[in-house]
Order: sequence, then structure tokens, then C-alpha cells
Amino acid sequence: MHDHDDHDHHHGDGCGHDHQLAKDQTAVRQISIPDRSDAPILVEVTRGAMVESRHRGRVVVVDADARVVAHWGDVDGLVYPRSSNKALQAIPLIESGAADAYAVTDEELALACASHQGETMHTQRVAAWLDRLDLSVDHLECGAHLPTHEPTAAALLAAGGRPTALHNNCSGKHTGFLAVAKHKGEKLAGYVRYQHPVQQRILGVIEQVTGQDLSRAPWGVDGCSIPTIGLPLGALALGMARLADPDSLPDRRAEAVTRLRRAWGAHPELVGGTGNFDTEVMRAANSAVLLKSGAEGVCCAVLPEHGLGIALKIEDGAPRAAGPAMAAVLKRLGVLPDTVWDGVAHLAVAPVTSRRGDTVGEIRPTAAAAG
Amino acid sequence: MHDHDDHDHHHGDGCGHDHQLAKDQTAVRQISIPDRSDAPILVEVTRGAMVESRHRGRVVVVDADARVVAHWGDVDGLVYPRSSNKALQAIPLIESGAADAYAVTDEELALACASHQGETMHTQRVAAWLDRLDLSVDHLECGAHLPTHEPTAAALLAAGGRPTALHNNCSGKHTGFLAVAKHKGEKLAGYVRYQHPVQQRILGVIEQVTGQDLSRAPWGVDGCSIPTIGLPLGALALGMARLADPDSLPDRRAEAVTRLRRAWGAHPELVGGTGNFDTEVMRAANSAVLLKSGAEGVCCAVLPEHGLGIALKIEDGAPRAAGPAMAAVLKRLGVLPDTVWDGVAHLAVAPVTSRRGDTVGEIRPTAAAAG
Repeated sequence: MHDHDDHDHHHGDGCGHDHQLAKDQTAVRQISIPDRSDAPILVEVTRGAMVESRHRGRVVVVDADARVVAHWGDVDGLVYPRSSNKALQAIPLIESGAADAYAVTDEELALACASHQGETMHTQRVAAWLDRLDLSVDHLECGAHLPTHEPTAAALLAAGGRPTALHNNCSGKHTGFLAVAKHKGEKLAGYVRYQHPVQQRILGVIEQVTGQDLSRAPWGVDGCSIPTIGLPLGALALGMARLADPDSLPDRRAEAVTRLRRAWGAHPELVGGTGNFDTEVMRAANSAVLLKSGAEGVCCAVLPEHGLGIALKIEDGAPRAAGPAMAAVLKRLGVLPDTVWDGVAHLAVAPVTSRRGDTVGEIRPTAAAAG
Repeated sequence: MHDHDDHDHHHGDGCGHDHQLAKDQTAVRQISIPDRSDAPILVEVTRGAMVESRHRGRVVVVDADARVVAHWGDVDGLVYPRSSNKALQAIPLIESGAADAYAVTDEELALACASHQGETMHTQRVAAWLDRLDLSVDHLECGAHLPTHEPTAAALLAAGGRPTALHNNCSGKHTGFLAVAKHKGEKLAGYVRYQHPVQQRILGVIEQVTGQDLSRAPWGVDGCSIPTIGLPLGALALGMARLADPDSLPDRRAEAVTRLRRAWGAHPELVGGTGNFDTEVMRAANSAVLLKSGAEGVCCAVLPEHGLGIALKIEDGAPRAAGPAMAAVLKRLGVLPDTVWDGVAHLAVAPVTSRRGDTVGEIRPTAAAAG
């Protein structure tokens, strides 16, 4: 993970890796950030005349050869990817043959990669997919929570409704897991457990793509009850780089990645939802960047045109800081046209508002992040 | 602010300060924490086998003579008190004569000091108080938000209701402001503005109690639209210490403090609400500690028996970290019986749960905080 740019070796892994990657990278501003702290202050929250709160974080930008293009803070420290690596978790849905066997659409693949907001466009599609699998919401083991899209949550409650597992932001991912288990003839109940073949298969994919031995990696139970595996932040970034540039992956895996990436980029509104950072920035960028946020302040980015992956972790887990930090990193790398940010300026630097709706401060990148 | 304990001068300010304070303090464990960082890591969030997120913070424990008994991180750095200094903001309600003129009850004084959760016990009392003032919810300039007590919010929406300014956690404080303005014959509209006499009067109280010249202090607009003034964290702690031990304050002010403290301690359920950290810890401690949390990870404590005040700020503003950090500080000071923590262990070390309700990690103090 620690090869530097001036250490110019393009070792492939025997999969016909060529020099196209390095050529593309000439468009990327090369950055060297002194590692002054384990986790420098990347985002500050102002109110009136003063900075009120500060968010530290770590970021790694890497290419598919594991060269670190830029980093803020410690590269090797572990992180739970949470929902940021859902595209990696969806690879077996295609590789297993389940996606073809059940005629899974690109919309459904996007939902398998999603942390959706529980809007009708999300829950109806997941319900229809479950129905086509001859399964129901009762098979989902992710638990229920109110839609994170507040108007949808309010409307649900106002109609006398209660949240179900369909509203869980991970319901599409779980439906994908069920599709794999059913297609492979595996027991459906308990598909969320660490030892279940569905989860072991995903662990193997993550190991291969990130080049890590994770057999003894620390893990925890995610909000949706599946395992989340502790990885070096740089390894997570490498996983994203190999989604950006899958040439070094086995052919079937590279094909799965290409298909997932197409679905992810074609349906940004299904991967997040209305007003969501990932969704709106992907839309503005015409999917030149693929974004996926996770809980506890994690955000990953895939840049296919540049063959780069980015992994970002806010030290304190604050979701509000992840978007502005990622936006600052993307701006600094110069990998998107400046005009991308025109329509999503309120997500790159987010307003702090009073209860009356007046803007009283902002959530903005620090000089350390923005350069 | 920086006198140390071995620098044994008990300068009063001519108000008959005696040595009772120092005597009481022999019961307090004296702590000296090396200032290794501006804001040491006080709280960590675990998930399974790993620490997932970390919260830095600063804490100052001080007596009414401004002696620093203990501190974690920088003492002088500024903080917006937000809602943590509502008791100071309520002093003019009594000093102005408004509380007596309008027969304000201890329950109403507690609500003036509250960040309540919008439960019926809160909104009904605020509505009745407004009614007695011949005012209505339309006079409140705090803005509306859903009750922070989730079952109350869900019930409100399910009944087809919408949040009003009564549900705003600050509605009691604002009713107190209106009572002062009305009693003094001041214009009601705009009572939230920095230049309005209601806010200028509060600024003067905070200056006197904390010993600061705040005429040029940075300020911002709080969530409820009133000014919040940037203070050194140690000065905020001193304000709390002078609530704990008001002997050095002018007589009328000391009487107001004693009355507010009584109301605050007698009605912990009105100051916060069901399940709230402040409320439940005050109840468990039989109000031997008075607690008040504010937005952006601020929490203050008043210890009348020990003449101490505590001010705490989580650097990143996370509310989830403030309670466990404050609990660790209170435990380390040894100012409450150990049995206090038996019933509120889930607030001192808070569980992290999955969407199915399983405990998958915890929010706990670090060794730096817990000692």
C-alpha cells in the first residue's frame, strides 16, 4: 500500500495489466500531504463568528496497483467499511449466477449496492424483487427503521403506518443476499451470520479484491446484522480502485464489477435518494464518480476514468462531515469538471440552520482538506 | 482561571467568602491530568472486536474561586455554551421581579432552565404559562421542531399533528424571556435579537458570573434564534461553580441562583425528559448533581455540596459522547455515591445496537477520561 508515485513500478498480477492507467493519471493532480497527525482536522463547523466543532478524519486515494496518490492521516489504521463497500458485497450476486437466473435488473443491482432512504421508489422495487423470488419481507433479517427520507417517514406515520424491514436502508442488499442463498440452495434463515456461506463468500471477495488476509481480522455486527470486517483504510481504497479499474481481477469478477458499476452509475437515485450527498453528486457528475457512504462517517469513491479509489473515515463517525470532506478531496484532485459543484454547493459546504430555517453557520472543509 | 490547588489563596471578592468551600473540597479527589493534547480522546465507540470511532473533548472542573481542580485538554479555548447555561439565562427572570409578578412556579422555573423533549408534561405546562401571561405560541420566536422524545413525535404525526414552537426544546426558556420583556415593558417582538434588552441583560449576567468581558466576544445564533456567546471553557465552568456556590455573587443574584437551583433539582423530568441523560442521572443522584446538556456536545454540571462546576465540550459536537464523558468525570472525581450509577449504567456506558435491537458495541470513556 505504501509505494509512492516516484517509485515507478507498474507490477500487474499476470492479468495483462497495461500502462493505460498511468497515462490516465497524468490528469490527476499529484498531492503530497505531510502526515502531521493520525487524523487531521478535515472539517469544521462554524456558527456566527467562531468555529464551534471540528471533525478529524483520514483519507486515502489509491490506484489499482496500490500506489498511494494522496492521503490525509494514517493509511494503515483499520476501519469498518459499513455500507461503503456494498458494491463489493454485491459481486457474488452476479458471480454466483443468481442475477441471471432471477433476471435481476440494473435497478435491482443498484438497490443491492444502496443505502436507500426508504422512499416509495425504493421500497416498491425491493418488494417486487422479493415477490419475484417467491420471498417476502419476513425473510429479511436486517430489522426495521423509519425511512431516513424525513417526509416519507412523516407520511408513513401520519397514515398510521409502521416501518418494516423494507424501509431499512439495506433492504435491497439483503434481497440480493437472499437471491444468492436461494440460487445456491443454501439455508435462508441466518443468512446474516458470519459463518453463513453468503457472508463467507463476501469475505473471500473482499480478501481477493483488497489483497488482505482477513481470516483473523476484527469484525463487528453492522446495523443491519451482517458482519462488517475491519480493514486498513488503504485496503478499502484499493478495493474501490479495483472497482474503478478491474483489469487485474479475474475475468468473471471484472465482468461482475463492470455490470455493477453500470447499474450504480445509471441509478444514483436508487443508491441513495432524494437530496442525498451520494445521489446528488453522482447526478451532477454524470456518474464520472461513483459514491457510497456508510455509517459512522465512512465514504468511498470510485473514479473509473482515472482508475482511482478513495476511502474516507471521519474519526468521530459524524455523517455530516463525510460529504464535505469527500467533496474537498474530489475538488483538490481535480478529477471532475469545476461545474459539477455548481448545483451541489450546499452539499460540499453544508449550511447550519436554526429551527426557523435561517442559515447561522456552515460545515466546511479546513485548509488541510481543501488545500 | 489558572490558579493551581497548591497555590493556596482564597481570594474572595469582598462578599464574605469563608473557608467552608475549601473544607468541602477535601472530599474531592484531586486530579492532575497531563495536558497531552488540546482535546484528548475521551470517548470511544466500539463495535465487536474493534474501536470504530473516537471522540475528543475538553473538560474543566473548577471551584467558585476559579481554582482548576481538574482538566482534560485546553482550559482557555472558546466554546459556545448553547443550552448548557440556561440557568444563567434564567437569572433575570427572577432578578427582574417577573417571576414574582407572574407567580412563576418552580415547575415553570425548571422549564425555563430546560431543554425538554416536547412530551405532554412539558408542552402543557409551557402552554399554561403562556396563557397566564396573556400570550400564545405565536409569540415564541424559537421555531418549531418535532419532539425529541421519539414516541411523542410518532404519536403527534400519527394523530395528523404538526410540531409547533411549544414542542421546541427551548419553549420554556423563551416563555421566561417573554415574561421578563412583558414585565419590563419591553417590545416583545424581536426578543431573540442580540441587541434586545432581554439578551443584553443576560449577557451582563454571564459577564458578571463568569468574570469575563464579553463585549467583543464572538457570538453566533443558536438553534432557537437567540445569541450564544463564545466563552473560554474554564469560564463556563466557573459560571457553574458560582451556581454551586453563589456566596461571592451579589445578594439578589445569589438568591436567584438558590431558587433556580432548587427548581432545577426538584424537577429533573421537566429539565430534560423521559430517558434523558441529565434527567435520569439527576434523579439517581437525588439532585446532588445538577446537569444541563447543550447542543454540539456540551454538558455542564453543578455540584452544590462540593462548590464545584464542570464544563465539558466534545470537539466534534457529538451528543452521544457528552453523557459518557461527563459520567466518567463525575465518577473519577468521586463526588457521588457509587450506587448512583447502578440504575443509569446504560447512560454512563451506552450500548450500540443493531436495527434488530441487539447490542453490538458500546460508547464508553477511554482510559484518559476514566483514569
